[in-house]
Amino acid sequence: MDTRFSSAIHTLILISEAEDPMTSEDIAVSVGTNPSYIRKITGLLKKKNIIESRQGARGFKLLIPPGELTLYMVYQAIVESDEIHIFDIHQNPNDECVVGRHIRPVMNDMFRTIEEKAELELKNATLKDVMDKMRKEMERSNRR
Amino acid sequence: MDTRFSSAIHTLILISEAEDPMTSEDIAVSVGTNPSYIRKITGLLKKKNIIESRQGARGFKLLIPPGELTLYMVYQAIVESDEIHIFDIHQNPNDECVVGRHIRPVMNDMFRTIEEKAELELKNATLKDVMDKMRKEMERSNRR
Repeated sequence: MDTRFSSAIHTLILISEAEDPMTSEDIAVSVGTNPSYIRKITGLLKKKNIIESRQGARGFKLLIPPGELTLYMVYQAIVESDEIHIFDIHQNPNDECVVGRHIRPVMNDMFRTIEEKAELELKNATLKDVMDKMRKEMERSNRR
Repeated sequence: MDTRFSSAIHTLILISEAEDPMTSEDIAVSVGTNPSYIRKITGLLKKKNIIESRQGARGFKLLIPPGELTLYMVYQAIVESDEIHIFDIHQNPNDECVVGRHIRPVMNDMFRTIEEKAELELKNATLKDVMDKMRKEMERSNRR
């Protein structure tokens, strides 16, 4: 997977927390990328009604409270898929071999079970959880 | 991920179950690929002492009983890594921004937790489990 998902989480934290509204340019500076990459991400987040452009003003507005916005919702918006895909299965096992004929549904089931557990983890984590962990991380590093 | 992992599981089932020992060529026919791809896989499995070439004969021998050979051991051998890697994190968040400075360790922790759960699933599943499921799948399709 590319880094759009973690960049989207970073973007959402900025939109949620920044005192002054941030433009794509401002966000790009913090994420460490270019504004067009951020615009692609904000476009996808808008499409799923997670954020909107502020009316008659610069920057964006979060439409879902951070405690209700799960990482799974962010993932779905950014990857444009409902499924986390971890494992690929070989496409052409030989139907004339007894193993070849039956392995795909079995592997598919097993892999899907694992992928669903990963999806569940993302469903159980909200943007607020990430921000709370970041605050703890900040306190820890300030104490050093 | 590419399909080497599922191809390796397919290969191991053949090595474990075939009445007559199978060469890379035979295995390639069942997996639906070419013999050099299978030789790459069997080479990696040999390196981790999961299989060996049969002495003075064709084919391979499984060195670990199917009930003890976990899918995680197969994964480690094939991917040559101990970690399942699902999520990438953006590499250059801006240190001068409070979010940029603290987001990487937090995202890293959260993603690693999810990846470890996926690893645990592979640790809890053996080659025998896959074969048992395949047998059930065969019975089911025979009844149709």
